[in-house]
Parts: sequence; structure tokens; C-alpha cells
Amino acid sequence: MSNIRGRFKKDMDEAAAKYSASVWVDWRLYAYDIAGSIAHAKMLARQGIVSDQEAESIIEGLGAIINEIEQGTFKFKPELEDVHMNIEVGLIEKIGEAGRKLHTARSRNDQIALDLRLYAKDAISRTISGIRELQRALVDLAEANKDAVMPGYTHLQRAQPVLFAHHLLAYFEMLQRDIERFGDCRERADVMPLGSGAVAGIAYKIDRDFLAKELGFKKISNNSMDTVSDRDFIIEYEADAGICMMHLSRLAEELVLWSSSEFDFIELDDLYSTGSSIMPQKKNPDIAELVRGKTGRVYGSLISLLTTMKALPLSYNRDLQEDKEGFFNCVDTLLSSLEVLTGMIATVQVKTENTSKVAGEGYILATDLADYLVKKGQAFRTAHEAVAKLVSYAAEKGKSLNELKLSEYNKFSPLFGDDVSSITVELSLAARDNPGGTAPKQVAKALKQARKAIGDSSASK
Amino acid sequence: MSNIRGRFKKDMDEAAAKYSASVWVDWRLYAYDIAGSIAHAKMLARQGIVSDQEAESIIEGLGAIINEIEQGTFKFKPELEDVHMNIEVGLIEKIGEAGRKLHTARSRNDQIALDLRLYAKDAISRTISGIRELQRALVDLAEANKDAVMPGYTHLQRAQPVLFAHHLLAYFEMLQRDIERFGDCRERADVMPLGSGAVAGIAYKIDRDFLAKELGFKKISNNSMDTVSDRDFIIEYEADAGICMMHLSRLAEELVLWSSSEFDFIELDDLYSTGSSIMPQKKNPDIAELVRGKTGRVYGSLISLLTTMKALPLSYNRDLQEDKEGFFNCVDTLLSSLEVLTGMIATVQVKTENTSKVAGEGYILATDLADYLVKKGQAFRTAHEAVAKLVSYAAEKGKSLNELKLSEYNKFSPLFGDDVSSITVELSLAARDNPGGTAPKQVAKALKQARKAIGDSSASK
Amino acid sequence: MSNIRGRFKKDMDEAAAKYSASVWVDWRLYAYDIAGSIAHAKMLARQGIVSDQEAESIIEGLGAIINEIEQGTFKFKPELEDVHMNIEVGLIEKIGEAGRKLHTARSRNDQIALDLRLYAKDAISRTISGIRELQRALVDLAEANKDAVMPGYTHLQRAQPVLFAHHLLAYFEMLQRDIERFGDCRERADVMPLGSGAVAGIAYKIDRDFLAKELGFKKISNNSMDTVSDRDFIIEYEADAGICMMHLSRLAEELVLWSSSEFDFIELDDLYSTGSSIMPQKKNPDIAELVRGKTGRVYGSLISLLTTMKALPLSYNRDLQEDKEGFFNCVDTLLSSLEVLTGMIATVQVKTENTSKVAGEGYILATDLADYLVKKGQAFRTAHEAVAKLVSYAAEKGKSLNELKLSEYNKFSPLFGDDVSSITVELSLAARDNPGGTAPKQVAKALKQARKAIGDSSASK
Amino acid sequence: MSNIRGRFKKDMDEAAAKYSASVWVDWRLYAYDIAGSIAHAKMLARQGIVSDQEAESIIEGLGAIINEIEQGTFKFKPELEDVHMNIEVGLIEKIGEAGRKLHTARSRNDQIALDLRLYAKDAISRTISGIRELQRALVDLAEANKDAVMPGYTHLQRAQPVLFAHHLLAYFEMLQRDIERFGDCRERADVMPLGSGAVAGIAYKIDRDFLAKELGFKKISNNSMDTVSDRDFIIEYEADAGICMMHLSRLAEELVLWSSSEFDFIELDDLYSTGSSIMPQKKNPDIAELVRGKTGRVYGSLISLLTTMKALPLSYNRDLQEDKEGFFNCVDTLLSSLEVLTGMIATVQVKTENTSKVAGEGYILATDLADYLVKKGQAFRTAHEAVAKLVSYAAEKGKSLNELKLSEYNKFSPLFGDDVSSITVELSLAARDNPGGTAPKQVAKALKQARKAIGDSSASK
Repeated sequence: MSNIRGRFKKDMDEAAAKYSASVWVDWRLYAYDIAGSIAHAKMLARQGIVSDQEAESIIEGLGAIINEIEQGTFKFKPELEDVHMNIEVGLIEKIGEAGRKLHTARSRNDQIALDLRLYAKDAISRTISGIRELQRALVDLAEANKDAVMPGYTHLQRAQPVLFAHHLLAYFEMLQRDIERFGDCRERADVMPLGSGAVAGIAYKIDRDFLAKELGFKKISNNSMDTVSDRDFIIEYEADAGICMMHLSRLAEELVLWSSSEFDFIELDDLYSTGSSIMPQKKNPDIAELVRGKTGRVYGSLISLLTTMKALPLSYNRDLQEDKEGFFNCVDTLLSSLEVLTGMIATVQVKTENTSKVAGEGYILATDLADYLVKKGQAFRTAHEAVAKLVSYAAEKGKSLNELKLSEYNKFSPLFGDDVSSITVELSLAARDNPGGTAPKQVAKALKQARKAIGDSSASK
Repeated sequence: MSNIRGRFKKDMDEAAAKYSASVWVDWRLYAYDIAGSIAHAKMLARQGIVSDQEAESIIEGLGAIINEIEQGTFKFKPELEDVHMNIEVGLIEKIGEAGRKLHTARSRNDQIALDLRLYAKDAISRTISGIRELQRALVDLAEANKDAVMPGYTHLQRAQPVLFAHHLLAYFEMLQRDIERFGDCRERADVMPLGSGAVAGIAYKIDRDFLAKELGFKKISNNSMDTVSDRDFIIEYEADAGICMMHLSRLAEELVLWSSSEFDFIELDDLYSTGSSIMPQKKNPDIAELVRGKTGRVYGSLISLLTTMKALPLSYNRDLQEDKEGFFNCVDTLLSSLEVLTGMIATVQVKTENTSKVAGEGYILATDLADYLVKKGQAFRTAHEAVAKLVSYAAEKGKSLNELKLSEYNKFSPLFGDDVSSITVELSLAARDNPGGTAPKQVAKALKQARKAIGDSSASK
Repeated sequence: MSNIRGRFKKDMDEAAAKYSASVWVDWRLYAYDIAGSIAHAKMLARQGIVSDQEAESIIEGLGAIINEIEQGTFKFKPELEDVHMNIEVGLIEKIGEAGRKLHTARSRNDQIALDLRLYAKDAISRTISGIRELQRALVDLAEANKDAVMPGYTHLQRAQPVLFAHHLLAYFEMLQRDIERFGDCRERADVMPLGSGAVAGIAYKIDRDFLAKELGFKKISNNSMDTVSDRDFIIEYEADAGICMMHLSRLAEELVLWSSSEFDFIELDDLYSTGSSIMPQKKNPDIAELVRGKTGRVYGSLISLLTTMKALPLSYNRDLQEDKEGFFNCVDTLLSSLEVLTGMIATVQVKTENTSKVAGEGYILATDLADYLVKKGQAFRTAHEAVAKLVSYAAEKGKSLNELKLSEYNKFSPLFGDDVSSITVELSLAARDNPGGTAPKQVAKALKQARKAIGDSSASK
Repeated sequence: MSNIRGRFKKDMDEAAAKYSASVWVDWRLYAYDIAGSIAHAKMLARQGIVSDQEAESIIEGLGAIINEIEQGTFKFKPELEDVHMNIEVGLIEKIGEAGRKLHTARSRNDQIALDLRLYAKDAISRTISGIRELQRALVDLAEANKDAVMPGYTHLQRAQPVLFAHHLLAYFEMLQRDIERFGDCRERADVMPLGSGAVAGIAYKIDRDFLAKELGFKKISNNSMDTVSDRDFIIEYEADAGICMMHLSRLAEELVLWSSSEFDFIELDDLYSTGSSIMPQKKNPDIAELVRGKTGRVYGSLISLLTTMKALPLSYNRDLQEDKEGFFNCVDTLLSSLEVLTGMIATVQVKTENTSKVAGEGYILATDLADYLVKKGQAFRTAHEAVAKLVSYAAEKGKSLNELKLSEYNKFSPLFGDDVSSITVELSLAARDNPGGTAPKQVAKALKQARKAIGDSSASK
């Protein structure tokens, strides 16, 4: 730190130094920081700002440092504040004078923007892969249980029968949107910031396009002041992650419900269950609960950075340092949540006899009864009212629909005929034969499309 | 409401009915609701589910209702709960039996999804237009003051001189990303949900592609259960709006700072200023403060819906009704904030003599001094340290840089020569001559590109 | 508005005027505003700042205005911006010159602080009453079902049997803490702000203690700059409301679960149930879902104001105007949520035969088996392991605990004797006989204390 | 972990085990966990549940473990999941059979509730001390500059002159409320949870009052189900911390503003300033910026836990594990922010010549002019309008108020006399002589009260 405190008479207060040091957090960026410095050194040499030998020496020195970091022998020093100064000082110690030239035509302001963008692009790729794996597990589970029926719920009340596979594919769709969103975010992260300097740009003749190419960016940023103070791509990742965790929390909630004694739809594998410190019989869906609970953490990271950025004047302000810890935490949480949910889905046993049994219970086919009347010519609202009264009557008598006699049916509409007994779960399912509906034919088609979307060759099966 | 309470013996409790009624809020969707119903009726007729005469009667009836609503003669009744039932009941009162057939092959669950998506697409278009207007005002202001210089700030400390136009264009870039984000969100909103029914799909032979075409959607949704419980597009809008309001809050903060006596960089027009109830001299930047303050409201709408959706099992749950009020409020807030900021920017007077004066004060050219030494062969870190000590020396002496004698310069580096006096604000600006930098040449190019991006023919000027 | 625009040449831009007007929202404060003005007028007269006749005229005029507002004949004009100016201008129109003196020794900055504090104190009282009513309904329901047994859940898995009343009393305790928190908040709201002026205090000899007494405040505020920029009491209310809504969301979640076919623990009254637009059989717990969903809205109001207040320099800034809409919405939401939940709890039917039946099923008494072994001398960890293996064995055999033979028990511990059959749900309950436990004796005591806490004379029964 | 997996055939999946392990975070609770276990062991012995020798052995073993932890020789093992199992297993390894008895009559559910409450009580005490220190620094700074005058701002516009000390005391008041809030939170944290067991209470005759006394709690909890699922005290801490950080962010914002070249009101000490990696002249208020930025983190922790707790059914759910990381982070952030701000305030140099100079500039005394007219008999509104026009006139002429001639004054009101020249900053200050006002007499009184509140003997000076 001392080397950028040239105009100060005193070192920083110890508590303040600790408060402002970020190396505890940003050391994780070392590989990106060094990749950026190597590209920068190459560019400086190409432009004649440093000599070729100096650039070589810098690149070699940085290579040595990355080895040391990965072998655990490099000492990060909090008093050097951040990952950038730690590496730069380490380089100077190693190669001397040439090292003192690396920071020419660069500021920490554009340097950290670069590191974060390289990290973000990687994080997005890993996130999308993680989502793909969960999609694959859902499709596998759907195919393995492709004839299973279950109640479709609204308001947590049984509403209409659906295929279990149809239910799982709803999550496939949510995750598909998540992938799109992260892909869009990647476009905005994929912008090369170096050359923005501290705020005004760089007073050397540099080659930003070379840097972009060297570092794998699609384009260079347009405005130096915006570039050093822009963290949109992080907030956008966190918002996308918030939506994705919300989806995961819904799936997790269902796993918790389904593994309860009351639903009893699934059996979680021991690999993903935990016991109790006091109740010997317990088999708890802790992993699903943790996924659900960690949703809070991801929402928190989003609101944190939005708060931090609110009303900051241009350009770089130190507040921005707060971007990293929440971002890393958000990425780690999402990736690990995807991983454990994928494992749970891949190993869960579906009790299809149970789901099927309740799929036909009660008055779940009432909509089909109303549609039956409509097809016999009644207006829908009138049919709906007639069936509602019929259900109310049956409930009072304690009878299910198929226990009612035709004469009882006819109390509510003369249109009911003997064929009312043909209304079954199977018919109900098959009737929903429009794209997006739960008819087995439609679900089979949807499964095939899903396989294709995740790039599985088994899509043809 | 009574007509969907067929199985109940009692009306709802009055407080509960009021609590659950949403017509106070969702009446705003009437035009979308009716457009959806008209398309639905056409489709029902095409498919032979209702007769052509019935469809015509429905369409005519709905046309009459929209007129009544727009003339203020239609009575929305809270006891009919929501906009959908109000219109359906109104229709039945108007046209009788045919009206009772409109809800065939449809559920409120896919109906409200449709209304919201139509509204969202409109809202996004209006948002993008609003952002474009603000961009235009920024570009106009930048061009009107294109030679003005000001200090570029980091940490709210004067860092390096920049062009005022360069500073404004930083906001142009932020807004450009906002437009991209809203555009991406529109892609995901642009999906036709009708045909999903309550949860399982529709048991009539319907034509979803016809509906999509009729209503101007790019495609139909893939999974009925997902469709009725998906509010991603609203959350995504709110997240995009959160980021956009964050940008506006930064601009508002600068307007507040710049109109303070201490900065004195701008004079707000009376059109956008307010007085005090007690202090006769006050001219307050209230509008900018309100924009800044309303950021909280938009963040709030985002966290509200994320919270509401957390851990909801499939499919539709009544919790989802909470999506609307926050969404409408978010859209209204963003649109009006864009509008007033555009007006403020369009009418603000820039005191360029003041910004220019302070752009050269103090030690703002210190970076250029360091770069000077680098160009004379010194390593950057060494140059930086030398200049830091020089600045510290000058500050103690109470002298500015151009008040120092060469001999004083030479105390810190022998490389300083007479040409040190050539380091001026103009030179400093001109030197930052890489894409994205503040050199007048670069800024002129950036202004041209900005004009092009907003589709202004004046781009050629 | 014009009368505080003395130094301006132009009226405000129309959109800006609409944007900054708050009378759409703050008109609700009229009664508090007028109460404050009456007290202020009295004080001005006591101090000789206005004459007694002037004060009388003002008070009479204000009384007339409050009547007009309550009879709906007073016209609030948006162009007069806020409730304060509307009333002041109305007064001047009514009584002339004396009306122009009312704002002496006062600023809108301390005036709005007063109105908000009066409103907040009222809101807190109503909130506490609302919570009390819900507590009462819970205690009534607990007493009406005081012998009912149900499974106590952890991880939504059946863990140990508990009394239904014990479960309900858990919510009583949460609500009790809510009352305490709101009570503490009231202490901090109960501070009289008038006399702070715009920022620096008042330059007339006023009597703040008189104002405090007249308006029912415990004390006066200590620092004028803090007073005009302090909204802590609103944020604190919103945080307390957030915690309270979280509690309500948990209760609502349980009502939703319990009214599902899978749990089937309760029957909601028709008064608090809704039907479906398409599925005639549905009886949905919409009100409970709405309570759960509205939690998002309250969290949103909290994060909104926290965001708005972040990093505002002293003293009053217009951003503060954003405090009101979220606050009113938060109060309205909490009060109505309490009301409908109270009604639901008061009318719900508990299916105690169902809850009792499942309270003894499965391996729910395994903890008691482990405790049995401990009481026979085994270390707890060893006992826990033995019973865990026993449960695993029984599950594999498909037997419940009381279907196992003693010889099977003894495979896992020789300590099991014939008396193992005495372990029943009743014994399990009775054994938890420490304060806070579910033993009927303890729960009876807790019910009595609860009655006492809510001030019911029936506490003695 | 194995010892609570008695009924499982397989170990957990590795990723799942890592995902659910909390020892990385909760090891920090070790001292509280052990204190709780020691009290529990004593109680078990008193009640004859374990023998005295067993208890002694347990207590000795735990004492040894705490030493090992503090000397860094104790190995926390992630595969043992959490701090509780790590210590219990460590104890069993050390003392054998007796160690297996420690968990008798206890569950991890009440154990973790205990640890968290002990930690929370400590955290609150340290927080209150930290706030006190900052208050002391503010009072010291106010006294050291007790005659300094500065502009009081509203809307960041100069409004009326105030004493610098008065401005600082506004923060004293905010912090005073923070202390009250944390004190109230402590009351609710100060409740002993042991004896609640997993959910239903404990089936041994235990002595909860003894535990409360031994562990320093005021009372015992009332309901076992509530106790194991209650995290209100953490959310309340986080909400209080959110409000407190908001206050600190306001102070930090002012330090940033005041240390800008434009305001130039203060000089930060080198101890609390940082340099730039590229701009040698920079002296940045990074620490203040970081305090401001970290506000986001604290808001984030609040919204995280509120989200996590939303709609959780009773009683303990694993989601609750998410409480700790955010809580610890929140406490650490608040404590360190208080510490560095205290240091900054203690070392800042106030440029009183600058603050005083601008305190009288411009039209800052316009309110006093209006009050002058009121005291000569004009109605306030009329006086306000006259002065507003006078200011407008003067601004156009480019004159300050004291540069206007009496004849010019009289254009706007005949009541102006020669004594108008007596309106000075000093008079303006002195006139605000009511409690809470900025008159030097009032501020001196306020400083004395502040000293008393923080318990300083120097209160008498």
C-alpha cells in the first residue's frame, strides 16, 4: 500500500486498513488479474511503451506467481490491500524495475473492472452448465415416470389430473428462461474495459482492440467514465440468480411437501437426507430446505448492491468495492444449489402408485363434467354452476362422483346421460390435447423438445 | 362473484371480500382483457365451439363495454372481485346467454396471464421510448456544451479534467444498456398464454397459434402449469427498472450536487424548481431529489414480488394477485421519472465558466506529470511516487503546480525540463485519444454514434 | 403553490408538478394536520404572536374545513401540492388575513413530521388492537379444542405428538413479541417535533411543552436538524410490521397446508373461502394465500424507505416525501391481514379426529423409546443409535412400533421390557411436563396466562 | 455426523454434505455452545439425570476443549456438520461414556437457539459500546469547535445558519435512538430457550430456571414450538442495524461532501485517507465511502432472513441454518463501521474559517428578514412573499442582501427600516432560542445533556 501513499505522512490506522482491505475477498480473482496483466504487458510491448524484454520478464514473473498461488506458497498480505497490489508488488520483488512499468497506461479502476468481467463471464458459463444438468435430471426423471399421473394443484388444492412428467416440465421451462436471461447478461458482461484508466481514458497510444481479442471479449467499452463505475453486469447476474433461486425454492418446497407423510409422493435417497440429533426416526429433507432457505441470501446480495450503487455520483467511488463479496457468495450459492438439487432429482424415488391413487380422488374431474355439459350444448357458466351444486350435494352425502346415480346427476341437469360414467382420469388427461396441455401425446412431444434443447442425442428415443 | 360460488352456502365475509378484491387495481387492465376476450371469441367461433352469431354478439357487447369504461359510465363493482368478472358479468347483462359462453375453454388463470403480458409489452415499449427521450436530451445538452471542460471525479475528489459532454455520455451508455435489458425482457414477455386453462390445459380443440397471431405474440407458451404460475417477466421488468432507477438516481444526485452553491455548475430552470414554505430565498432541486428518493419504491416493488413468489408450490396460487399493484407502481414511477428528468436536462443551464475554472485547479494534472516522466523513461511506479511527493511538497507550500519553479520540480526528479509548463488541461484532454477516452476527437465521435443509436437524422451534423 | 413561489418567474412544468404533488397520498393526514394547526394557533395566541381573536378565527375556520372534508365537499387541489397547503389556502379563503398568520413560527418540515407522528401513534394503537384480536381468536380456538392432539412437525416431518392448543400458542407468543415491539416503537414516535422549523429552530418565543401537552406527546424533540430529517419511527414500524407479517405468513402457510386434501386437518368456513372460475369443485384458501403473498408488500415498504434514506445528507431533503405511500400501504396491509386472519381462525373447524389419528402413526414415538432406554440406564447417544436401528428395521418390515414383538425390540437393546408397550401418545405428551412443554398440565397453565395477557376476564375459567 | 445417521444405509453425498455443513460459519459460537453445555451438565446432575462425577467429567472435558480451540489445536471437522456435533464428538473422544450422556434432555434445536441468544446478547452489548464511542467522538468534536458556524442545509441548499455543533448533535440524537432500539432488542433476546427440546419440550424433570440463572438470562421461554423456530431477535437486530447503518451512511455522505474541494469544510487525517494507484495527488475519503457502501450489506442481511423465514410452517426447519452467516456479517460490519467512523471523527480537522465564511453568504438570512417583517406586524405569508420578491430582485441585480439600499428594501415592504442592517448571522443564531434550536445557549445545554447521556464525568465542564 505504501507505494501509493506517496503524498501521505502517516500509514493508515490499523482498524481502517483492515476495514478497507479487500484481499480477503478479492484474492479469488488472481487468475483473471494475471491474465489481464499478461495481455496488458503484451499490448504495451506491441505499442512500444515497454520493451519486448520487459514484457517477457513481466509475463514470466506473472507465470511464476500464478504457480506460487496455486501451490499455496504465495503470501497475500492484507497491508497491500487488494489482489492487484499484492500481485504487482510480488512481481516487482521478483523481476525488479520492469515490474514497476506494468501499471503504465492502466488504473486499478479499469483493472478491477476487467477482473470482474472475466470472472462474471466464467461464472455465467458455469451457471448455465449447472442449470443444464438440473434440466437433464428433470427430463430423466420425467421419462422414467412418463406414465405417472398426479393431481395438478392450484391453491394447493387438487384441481385437475396431470402427468407427473408435465409437472416436472414446468420447471424445465422456468430453467430455460433462466438460461436465456444469463445468456443475455453475458452479452453485457462481454465488454473489455481496459483503456478507461482512472476516469478519463489513457494518455498513451494503446490498442484496446488487441486487448479485447487477446482476452476473448466481443467488444470494447464506449465511455471511460461509465466503464469504471459500471457494475450493471453484476446486479443483472444477481437479479437473474434471484429469479432462478426463486424457481429452485419452488421445486424445493414441492420436494419438502412430497416427502411429507401427508403427501408421501416421493422417497428421498439417503444420500440427500439427514437425521435428527434427538429423534431417531427422522429422515429430513434438509437439502431441499436449505435450497429454499438460501433464496434469502441471493435476494440479499441483489438488494445489497442495488443499495450500494444508489445515488453514487460519477465516476469510481470506493463504495464499489462492496460488489465482490455478495457477488461471489451469490455465484457460489447458486452453483451449489443447482448441484445438490440435480443430485436429489437424479436419485429420488417417485411413489407413482400414491400419486396416481389421489389423482382421481374427490371431485377432481368436476371441470370435465362441466365441459361434458358444454359439449351437450349448455353455456359454460350455466354448466359450471350446475356442476358446482352437484359437487356440493355429493359432498354433503359423502359420496364421490362415481358413486352418484344418474338420477342424482339429473337433479342438476337433464343433459347428463349414461355416458357420464365414461369421464375418467385417462379421458381427462387425453382431452387436454393442445400444445402445452397435459395430454400424453403433448407431453411426449414436449419431452422430445426438451431433450433437443439440452442437446441430448437421446432426444430421438 | 356469486356465479363462481356455486358450491358455497354463504357469501364471503365482508372484510375478506374487500381484502381479496383486486378490481381497485386491476381495472387498469380492461383494454387488454377485452382485446383478449375478442380474440378468444373469434377463435371459439373458428373452431365451432360457439356459433358465429354468438361470437359477433360477444364482440359487439365487449365493444360497447370498452366505450362505457372509457366514457366513465361503466360501474366496476368490488363485489365482482376483479376486472375479468366485472366485464364478463357486464357482458352477460348486455347480451344474455351468448355471454355465458365466453369463458368456455378458458380460465381466469390463463386470462390474467394474458392481460399482464399484453400490459407488460406495452409498458416496455413506453419505457424504451422514455429512455430514448432522456438519451436525446443528454446528447442535446452535450452538443450544446461540447467544448465545456469540468473535473472528472473519483471519490468525489477532482481526479482528471474531462469534457462535460464525456461525462453526460457516460449516462447515455447506462441508458443504452437499460434499453437492451428491457428489449430482452420483452422477448420473454412476448409469449401467448391462453390455452393453458386453470392448470392442465384445455379440453376443447382450440387454436393457440391463431390466438397468438391475433394478439400479436411471437409464440405460444410451452407448458400449461408453468404458464399459469409464471411471473418472471414482471420480476425481470422490475429488476431492469431497479437498475435503470439506480442510474437515474446517480444523475439526480449529480444534479443536486451541481445545483448546490458549493459546486454551482448548473442552474435549474424554474419549471423544475420549488420554493420553501418558510425560507423565501430557496430554489430547491426537488424534482431531482424525488427521482433519487423514488429509487426506493422501485427496489421495493422488486423485493416484494421476489418475496411473494418464494417457495410457492405449483401451479397458480392466489399469492400471485399481489403482482399487479407493485408492477403498475413500478412502471408509473419509472415512466414519470424519465419524463421529468428529460425535462430537467432539456432546460438546465450549464455554467461552463465555473466548470472550466475548477477543471484546472489544484493538482488535477498530477497524472499527466507522472505520464510526462514515464515518457522521459521512468518506470510508472517510480514516476507516480515522485509526483506524489511533489504534490505533497506543493500543498505544504500552498502552491499550485504551475507556481512551482523548475528547480523545485527537479528536487523530485531530474527528468523534469522546461517543457513541464506545457502540461495544460487542453493537453491533458487531447492526450486521452483512445476510443472511450475524453479527447475532444473521441468525444465528437461518440456523440455521432449516440445520435445514430437514437435514430436522429441530425446524426450527420 | 404559487404563494411559496415568490421568487420564481414561471410556474412549474405540468408533469413535474404532478410528479411532486403529494396530496393524492397525504390528504389522509388531514385530521392530524388540522389538530396540529389548532394546537399551534392556541400556542401562538398564548405567546402573543397572534391575537386571541385571530387564533379563534383560525380554529373556527379549521373546524369548518374538517367538516367539509368529512362531508366530501372540500376540494383538494393537486396544484396546491400537499395537504398542508390545501388546508392553509382553504383557511385563508375562508377567514382572510388571520389565516396568513397560521404558518408563523412553523415550517412544513416540522409540520409534516408532526402529522406523521400523530398518524403513527394512531396506527400503532390500531395495530396492537388488531394483534390482540387475533391472539384472542387463537386462544378461543385452542380452548375449544383443548384435548386435540396432532403431530408436532420439524422439517415438515412428524416429529413428536403435541397438543393442538400448544401449537396455536406458539403463534400467541410470536404475536406477543410483536406487541412489545410496536409498543417500543410507539415510545420513539411519541416525541413532539413542532418548534424545529425548517432546520435551525424557531426565531419566536414559542412554548414547545405546551404543544406537546396539547397534542398528547410524552416529550419534545431534542435537536431541530435531526427532527426534520428523522423517519426512524416509520422504518421501525415497517420493520416491526415485516416481522409480524412474517409470523402471519407462517400461520397462513399452515392454514393452506391444513386445508389441503393431504393434511385435511381443518375446514375453512365458506365466509373465508373462494371458488374457481373454471373448476366447480374448488374451495380455495385464498385469504390465507393473500396474507402470505402480502408479506412481500410489507417487506417492500421496509426496503423502500431504507433505500430512500440511505446516504442523505442533513437535513430535510425532498426524498423524504416518499415515506408516506409505503407507510400507509404497510399499515393498511397489516391491519386488514390481521382482521381477516382473525375471522378465519374464529370460524375454522378443526378435524380433531384426523389430527389425532396421525399423531400416533409411524415412528413418532421413537424419541420416547430412546428416553425409555435412558431411564433404564443407557447413555443417550447409545439409546438414540439403538432406536434408530430399530426404526430402520421396522420400516423395512413394514411394521409400526407397536406391531413389533419384544424379541424384535431386544435385538437392538436388552433393556427393552414388557413395559415398552406402555409408551403411548398420551404418555409422551404427559411426560413433557416442564414449563413451555406440551404436557396438558403445562398447556392449561399457558392458556390461563395467555387469557391474562390479553386482559380477558374469562381468564379464570 | 455418522452417529445421528443411525437409520440410514448410506453416507451423505459429498456435495450435499458440504452444502449442509455449517461448521465453517458456526464454529464462532464455540464459547457459547460450551457455556451452555456446562450449565446443562450441572443441571442434569442437580436433577439426578447424570451423576455428579459424570457432570464433573463433562465440565472438565469441555474446559479442555475450549483451551484447545483457543490455542488452535482443536480440529473442526466439516463431516461432523456443525459446532455442536464437533464439540460433542470431541468430548466423547476425550471422556468416553459420560460424554454420550451430555445430549440427554436436549436437542440441537434448543441448543442452537441458546447459542444464538448468548451471542446476540454479547453482540448487542458491543454494539451499544461502539455507538457510545462514536457519540463521544461527536461530542468531543462539537465541543472543540463549539463556536463554529456553518450553513444549515435543506435540499443541499443553504437554508439558515446553524452551529456546527448543532449539526453534529443531530447525529448524536440518531445514535441515541439506535441505542434504545438495541436495548429493546436485548430484552427480547434475553430469554432462555433450553428445555424446549426438538419441538414438544423435554420428557425429563429438568430445571429451566436454574439454567436461566446459571447462564444469565432474565427469563425462560414460554412455548417450546415457538422457541425452536423463533429468530425474531436476529431479524430485530438486523433491522436496528439497518437503521443505524443508514444513520452512519448519512454521516459518511457528509464527510465525503465536506472533504470535497467544493465544500472544503474538513481535512481528513492521513490515518483515514487513501491514495490512488494512478493519480498521485489524490487524497480520498475511502473509509467514509466504504461505510456508506456497506449499508447495502446490512440491508441485505435483513432482507435475507426475512425472506428465509417467510411462510415457514412450524416448527424448526433447516432453512433456519441460514440465519447465522448474515447475522455475523451484519454484526461485524456494524461494529467495524462504528470503529472507523469514530476514528475519523476523532481525527478530522474542521476548517471553521471556511464553514463560517459561507454561513453568511447569499440569501441565507431571508427567513430572518421575513420574521423581521412579521415582528413589525405583517402576516407571515405576506412577509414571505415580499422577501421572496426582494431576493429575486437582488439575485437579478447580482447583489447580496447587505448590499441593497433601504430604498430598495422598501420597494418590497414599507416596514423595512434602518434596523434591517442588524440582521446578522449571530442574531439569526441567537434568535433560535427554544429547546432544540441552534441558539448557542441551547446548544451548550444540549452538549451538557449529551455528555450526561454517555456517562462522561466531564459533563460538568
